[in-house]
Amino acid sequence: MSSGPSAADLSDSAFPSRESRARNNADSVRVGVIGYGYWGPNIVRNFRALDRCEVISVCDRNAKALKRAQKTYPALHLTTDFTEVLASPDIDAVAIVTPVWTHFELAKKALENGKHVFVEKPFTSTSAQATQLIELACKKNLRIMVDHTFLFSGAVRKIRELVDNGTLGPLYYFDSTRVNLGLFQHDVSVVWDLAPHDLSIMDYIVRERPEAVVATGGNHFNDLADMAFITVYFPSNITAHINVNWLSPVKVRTTLIGGRDKMLVWNDIEPDEKIKVYDKGVEITNGQSVYDLLVSYRSGDVWGPKVDATEALTLELGYFVDCILEGKAPSNDGAAGLRVVRLLEAAEESLKDRGRIIVL
Amino acid sequence: MSSGPSAADLSDSAFPSRESRARNNADSVRVGVIGYGYWGPNIVRNFRALDRCEVISVCDRNAKALKRAQKTYPALHLTTDFTEVLASPDIDAVAIVTPVWTHFELAKKALENGKHVFVEKPFTSTSAQATQLIELACKKNLRIMVDHTFLFSGAVRKIRELVDNGTLGPLYYFDSTRVNLGLFQHDVSVVWDLAPHDLSIMDYIVRERPEAVVATGGNHFNDLADMAFITVYFPSNITAHINVNWLSPVKVRTTLIGGRDKMLVWNDIEPDEKIKVYDKGVEITNGQSVYDLLVSYRSGDVWGPKVDATEALTLELGYFVDCILEGKAPSNDGAAGLRVVRLLEAAEESLKDRGRIIVL
Amino acid sequence: MSSGPSAADLSDSAFPSRESRARNNADSVRVGVIGYGYWGPNIVRNFRALDRCEVISVCDRNAKALKRAQKTYPALHLTTDFTEVLASPDIDAVAIVTPVWTHFELAKKALENGKHVFVEKPFTSTSAQATQLIELACKKNLRIMVDHTFLFSGAVRKIRELVDNGTLGPLYYFDSTRVNLGLFQHDVSVVWDLAPHDLSIMDYIVRERPEAVVATGGNHFNDLADMAFITVYFPSNITAHINVNWLSPVKVRTTLIGGRDKMLVWNDIEPDEKIKVYDKGVEITNGQSVYDLLVSYRSGDVWGPKVDATEALTLELGYFVDCILEGKAPSNDGAAGLRVVRLLEAAEESLKDRGRIIVL
Amino acid sequence: MSSGPSAADLSDSAFPSRESRARNNADSVRVGVIGYGYWGPNIVRNFRALDRCEVISVCDRNAKALKRAQKTYPALHLTTDFTEVLASPDIDAVAIVTPVWTHFELAKKALENGKHVFVEKPFTSTSAQATQLIELACKKNLRIMVDHTFLFSGAVRKIRELVDNGTLGPLYYFDSTRVNLGLFQHDVSVVWDLAPHDLSIMDYIVRERPEAVVATGGNHFNDLADMAFITVYFPSNITAHINVNWLSPVKVRTTLIGGRDKMLVWNDIEPDEKIKVYDKGVEITNGQSVYDLLVSYRSGDVWGPKVDATEALTLELGYFVDCILEGKAPSNDGAAGLRVVRLLEAAEESLKDRGRIIVL
Repeated sequence: MSSGPSAADLSDSAFPSRESRARNNADSVRVGVIGYGYWGPNIVRNFRALDRCEVISVCDRNAKALKRAQKTYPALHLTTDFTEVLASPDIDAVAIVTPVWTHFELAKKALENGKHVFVEKPFTSTSAQATQLIELACKKNLRIMVDHTFLFSGAVRKIRELVDNGTLGPLYYFDSTRVNLGLFQHDVSVVWDLAPHDLSIMDYIVRERPEAVVATGGNHFNDLADMAFITVYFPSNITAHINVNWLSPVKVRTTLIGGRDKMLVWNDIEPDEKIKVYDKGVEITNGQSVYDLLVSYRSGDVWGPKVDATEALTLELGYFVDCILEGKAPSNDGAAGLRVVRLLEAAEESLKDRGRIIVL
Repeated sequence: MSSGPSAADLSDSAFPSRESRARNNADSVRVGVIGYGYWGPNIVRNFRALDRCEVISVCDRNAKALKRAQKTYPALHLTTDFTEVLASPDIDAVAIVTPVWTHFELAKKALENGKHVFVEKPFTSTSAQATQLIELACKKNLRIMVDHTFLFSGAVRKIRELVDNGTLGPLYYFDSTRVNLGLFQHDVSVVWDLAPHDLSIMDYIVRERPEAVVATGGNHFNDLADMAFITVYFPSNITAHINVNWLSPVKVRTTLIGGRDKMLVWNDIEPDEKIKVYDKGVEITNGQSVYDLLVSYRSGDVWGPKVDATEALTLELGYFVDCILEGKAPSNDGAAGLRVVRLLEAAEESLKDRGRIIVL
Repeated sequence: MSSGPSAADLSDSAFPSRESRARNNADSVRVGVIGYGYWGPNIVRNFRALDRCEVISVCDRNAKALKRAQKTYPALHLTTDFTEVLASPDIDAVAIVTPVWTHFELAKKALENGKHVFVEKPFTSTSAQATQLIELACKKNLRIMVDHTFLFSGAVRKIRELVDNGTLGPLYYFDSTRVNLGLFQHDVSVVWDLAPHDLSIMDYIVRERPEAVVATGGNHFNDLADMAFITVYFPSNITAHINVNWLSPVKVRTTLIGGRDKMLVWNDIEPDEKIKVYDKGVEITNGQSVYDLLVSYRSGDVWGPKVDATEALTLELGYFVDCILEGKAPSNDGAAGLRVVRLLEAAEESLKDRGRIIVL
Repeated sequence: MSSGPSAADLSDSAFPSRESRARNNADSVRVGVIGYGYWGPNIVRNFRALDRCEVISVCDRNAKALKRAQKTYPALHLTTDFTEVLASPDIDAVAIVTPVWTHFELAKKALENGKHVFVEKPFTSTSAQATQLIELACKKNLRIMVDHTFLFSGAVRKIRELVDNGTLGPLYYFDSTRVNLGLFQHDVSVVWDLAPHDLSIMDYIVRERPEAVVATGGNHFNDLADMAFITVYFPSNITAHINVNWLSPVKVRTTLIGGRDKMLVWNDIEPDEKIKVYDKGVEITNGQSVYDLLVSYRSGDVWGPKVDATEALTLELGYFVDCILEGKAPSNDGAAGLRVVRLLEAAEESLKDRGRIIVL
């Protein structure tokens, strides 16, 4: 593994560690996974299916979780002590699949120990933490990847392609709804739980630095919002809106994206036809007075491009391994994670002040 | 028609007009309709189908509109001069189906001339105008009905029933989406065009005085918002949210209403099963620490109550005629119209200031 | 009306009738409508909206029906005596919108009196009747149009276009489902009530002479089938299947059409995206043994062509008027009506004998 | 395992086999699985998750399939020789998950060797084979279970409950559509591939001995039907219809069931609301003449009962293990398998003769 030694070279230790010597020509990544709750099993399953990757160890403080892991993978090394994973010389990269408030400490230790880091979304609890981790990884020449899984879904990749190749034309808006019943989180609001998906997708599609955030919402059980409506303003006049709700009786995963030339609906619930591109539009010509607006509408065919059905996490983890082995920076790196955290902080702040605008 | 003479009594004319004398025992309402554009024909068709009602005259300044009216109703009296309608002694009530900026002047004249008034939504351009009309109608003992048509739809009546009889339990939120392509209005934003529907329904269902409004959105063609996201705060912690958009490629008319005991989805696009009531819910018990939340979910049957399919406008106009003939105040009276106009003013003000909270 | 005189020329009467003399240069068609039940009002409304057409008289034996007609069209001539319509010298064409068992007598009289005839589907009760009417119309040079309304819908015209221009490739099958609750007919089974739609569309799309029919089904209330499943065999190996049912709790109007190159779904319930064309297919290459089949699947984009939303009946009746004025034979003429009646007869016969194959 | 010894007692061998002695008090079932293609992995995964069950060996002639098995279950015994599984003294039950033409030979050997048998649907290629296996199992007191998985789905169990408790009232019809693109089978038509699902469900719900079958359809690539329409007649006048098609661009899994008191739609594609029960119905009273039918319609609420989401195969295999350990006959036993095979034979025969009725 080429990046192992280079990380060691850049570290404060002048001497390469034992394992980096031993694995000078390594062409695979040895992974430790911390956290085997809801999402961890998917991480382990996908890492194991990769060719150039080996899962060395799985850690969870919950004995039941470890028992489940053992039943599925009898041969796997299991531990309740995360320091074991963070310190192991046999591990090149650590996947952190734990509650957000633990991300910073775990990732920091992992980076300090020369491990590449894969962190579940959202990256960290604060943007200050995110910045610190980014700097640390940079100094030690290690990779950080933030698990913005949706960016690797066939649907989002297709949307990005349609935006990039100009099919939609300049964008007017991005409006995403992500609602369902539960699961209530103990430590974070619905903003920190669900909105990272939409914000990371928005960041990936809109590709513009947002200038302000307004968020409203409500909390009906404790002091954490269980529903929130986030508006993000962009300099180019793109309007983004995100509706997240833990109290919806139905599951909705719909994103409308309006462009000058085409409009798009992404319905992630649909098993087959997730994306529809509408040849619809409006043209308004200003006449002589305010009542002389000439409005013309265009309404043509609908097109449902085929969307790659490969599991997003498979692609993402494969990309993580590639980035490590080839020493390249992932697109969903710490900086991408930081951009999302900043929006989350702003949204939470705005929400607490009943929609006060937060200029970024 | 009892209210005819009383209107005359209260008017500045001390002498009852010829027709009010003649119609002392009138049991039907003679209507004049001003405006025969998009909505006017529905008004005329429905008034004509009523038993205790007669359409006397239709007015529109647009010759093409009048031609269409003549083709459908060869015997109808048509005019391009609205003063003719407003002054006619043969007309008891005037339906004003014109752009909102004309409502006040027309309604004022109509009331001054002793006519009952049916006004398309939104009631007026300003709350000051609305107040003035309400006072005038009160003074002259005339009826004002604001055309909040949806309140007479089977779906909204059923929802109100389910809220009133306690089926849903105390409400948590009201979240409504009303988006489609166009029709752009020349004089008002999407807020004034589409949101009156949702705000009047919210007002009818939630039945609580809202305390503040936050609205965000965007305008992409001129300085009128073509998409808007309105949050309404209520003292009892009900959160209302309204998403209106003229730039959507698909038509969506969906309202989610979350209650403690049941949750409801109203999809007005569905031809048959418009309302679904979900036996779903969340219960959160606070444990000893923040991490001790005990959350339990309930997910049971779904129920689709039969919804009366009678055309809403038929019921509404029948009710208008009843209110006139029986001298009773309609529930969708001027005061209801004013409540909506106040919310529209607040939303527009908030929107222009990028989401500044407007306390009502 | 050019065809008036020519009809007269070809008739056994050597003397042009009074009205044909009077209207030598007529450029509009004067229509009488017999039957003002469920469908008649649509016929009247659409005829009236046409430019080169005038509705002279409406006939129904039911006083209530006539009262409804009078309310909508106070100026229209109404009668309960159909001979009045059939004999009137002021009428050029008769629309017969009555139960099927009356079609033959009415159409025959109309043709004998020199009137063009528009007949609701199904054309006649027997193919012998249909043949007789076709011959009569031919002899008198009059037009017969059978009301296969769906052929004029945007969806069916688009499908025909996609078949004709080779988009779908050679067809494999046509599978249509038309089910809903009721309306039970008194005199005919669900086969004669609903299947004419599907059979006429099939005839229009497949454009091949069917060779045999098998029909099964059931009757649960009287001796008329309330559900039926009709298979039509074609020489070129196209398989057609039609599922009609009066006892379904949901309304389904879906037609699948499989072609070698593309497959199509027409969902007539959808308000906007009625047709979807799938770039899907199968290729099977025979290997050396039966177990060496090489099957490859193709699954690409979906395409929803824009479908003209003009009311089908408007186009159809306009076409009827055109055919009369321009002396041309309609595509949905008596022969088309006869082809459908033959299939209905075969289906009914097969159904009664529990699926015995009827070779045509 | 109690049934092991009893099987031995009933066998022609007077001496209990070694393993039956050894496992006199066995309370778990040791399973061998033959076939690890498309469905086999689900069988293995589910057997492994059961408490009282152990997967001893997996067999497949395809090396690639075994490699996949090894990757997932490194510790599992794998073999390409099915006789090894059929003969192993360490195996109590054999799951046969292979092409239908191999079922008879494999099941026969397994039963002869004293193994209980779980066979994928359809049970056998002929009813004669099915009868022979049933008799053999009976003689040796062994269990046969035919993998009619759907009978264990929450949806089908709920439907059965609604029929059994009289909610639907007497049934009028059962109409099932199961279409999608592929997968073409090499050795059997779409009838033998897809219809076993619908026929086994029909058998489970209708619970009446069918009296005749008519099947039509088409084949477009080789001499095996790729689409088929099967009608099953029942003495009580219930009409069953099944539409199976390998050439559909869209996946449809919809069953309509009409009863006198309620009507039901089961849409298995829906993730959440699979079943809807409609309070709809028709009542027809015969008047004095054929035209005096008095028809009344009932259209009330819709109800979506909650459906258990447990994986059907989990329940089915658990039930298989229970039946073995407790010595009870499964409801989906050889006789149930035989009933379905008889219908498949009849359908195939009818289909080949273009819909000739096959009386059972």
